[in-house]
Amino acid sequence: MTYCVALRLNRGLAFLSDTRTNAGVDDISTFRKMSCWEIPGERTITIMSAGNLATTQAVISLLDERSRNAEDHEPSILTASSMFHVARIVGAALRESITGAATTSGLMPATFGASLIVGGQILGGDPRLFLIYPEGNFIETSDDTPFFQIGETKYGRPMLVRAFRADMSFEEACKLLLVSLDSTVKANLSVGLPVDMQVYPRDSLHTGRLFRVTAENDYFKTISTGWGQSLRDAFQAMPSFDLDGHIG
Amino acid sequence: MTYCVALRLNRGLAFLSDTRTNAGVDDISTFRKMSCWEIPGERTITIMSAGNLATTQAVISLLDERSRNAEDHEPSILTASSMFHVARIVGAALRESITGAATTSGLMPATFGASLIVGGQILGGDPRLFLIYPEGNFIETSDDTPFFQIGETKYGRPMLVRAFRADMSFEEACKLLLVSLDSTVKANLSVGLPVDMQVYPRDSLHTGRLFRVTAENDYFKTISTGWGQSLRDAFQAMPSFDLDGHIG
Repeated sequence: MTYCVALRLNRGLAFLSDTRTNAGVDDISTFRKMSCWEIPGERTITIMSAGNLATTQAVISLLDERSRNAEDHEPSILTASSMFHVARIVGAALRESITGAATTSGLMPATFGASLIVGGQILGGDPRLFLIYPEGNFIETSDDTPFFQIGETKYGRPMLVRAFRADMSFEEACKLLLVSLDSTVKANLSVGLPVDMQVYPRDSLHTGRLFRVTAENDYFKTISTGWGQSLRDAFQAMPSFDLDGHIG
Repeated sequence: MTYCVALRLNRGLAFLSDTRTNAGVDDISTFRKMSCWEIPGERTITIMSAGNLATTQAVISLLDERSRNAEDHEPSILTASSMFHVARIVGAALRESITGAATTSGLMPATFGASLIVGGQILGGDPRLFLIYPEGNFIETSDDTPFFQIGETKYGRPMLVRAFRADMSFEEACKLLLVSLDSTVKANLSVGLPVDMQVYPRDSLHTGRLFRVTAENDYFKTISTGWGQSLRDAFQAMPSFDLDGHIG
């Protein structure tokens, strides 16, 4: 499993991806799930992936190869004219990888399923964030839904819903990403540290600053133990249910 | 969908079940998902259900009919000698309902799937809590896992994991049940109020006190708005990620 989340903030984009992949609980590995491309000063594109690892690696390799052979007749994410066009190219590559694997093996496409988050900015446009489905179609963030999650999304969602603000600082955004991750890690063994984080300030048009946070990181330990205690304190501070005074 | 949760406390058992059922978002109804049986002073049994409503209603009716005809050759939950035996009877009834529906229709058993939580106490034994799978087998709470959830379980789990204590009061337990519910309701439309709650003091051997909590209930409104604010406050109080001082 996987936990990836991306936020669209007023000041730019923030990404987090875990690194755990598993094929059974006795077959666990660490793989980076965040890939970045850039043409400095012109565009930056980040893709995070969840699902079948062979599929997502095939997609990344496909996009990578096509971006290196600009003469290739296939469109490249490094020459696409807009982030919308980038999302279409990524969606097509994802669909192609999944249906290709399904056709060759005779198995159902769902066996090779994967989802992607694509974010970035191209000179002249705004920073944009897309969620790409296994079918190759996609949705974009809006003011109502300013973040996307893929993988094991449910445990970490309540805090995102409650604490996200479009005007947060990157420092606050990273805290939110790690709090959301912490709830997920505590509940699901198949999501694990280290995590990769990236903060991308709008209009910088370079790959944003990258951070790898390990389980031994002091800040993460503060969040992980402190957040549990904060929740318990907040819980204690709420009034108790009045068994005798209850009126339905 | 559904959200049901039951806690095994030192002082007894606490149950919560929502009432929303849906077959598509335009076909939503309210059904009680908590059923209680008692022989005052001798036993009390509570069953909560999640999954196919026709299946769970069939199970409840089957158990009910058999408990009324004591001469029936089928064992009844009202004559079973232990809660373990009760769980076996309920498991068999669940399996029977699911395989029966699958056989008659020619559809997969999963189409008619359902899970149950069974809790209660029989004179001479302790209060016990079981989770019954669609296959009819089951697990029991332990000191390590002192609560069970069925239905839409993930959103409400982080707070249960963090705030549960076996020695909590019933007032605190009800607060915990409603906080856990609130996270679920906020994230999933298919879980909805009103909810039914029951607190069962150990050795009382009567159906415990029942409460129905509606969305208009003042206490629930306090929890629902207050908890969101408490979470945001707790989040604010945590230190922010230090972008510049970060050491991985």
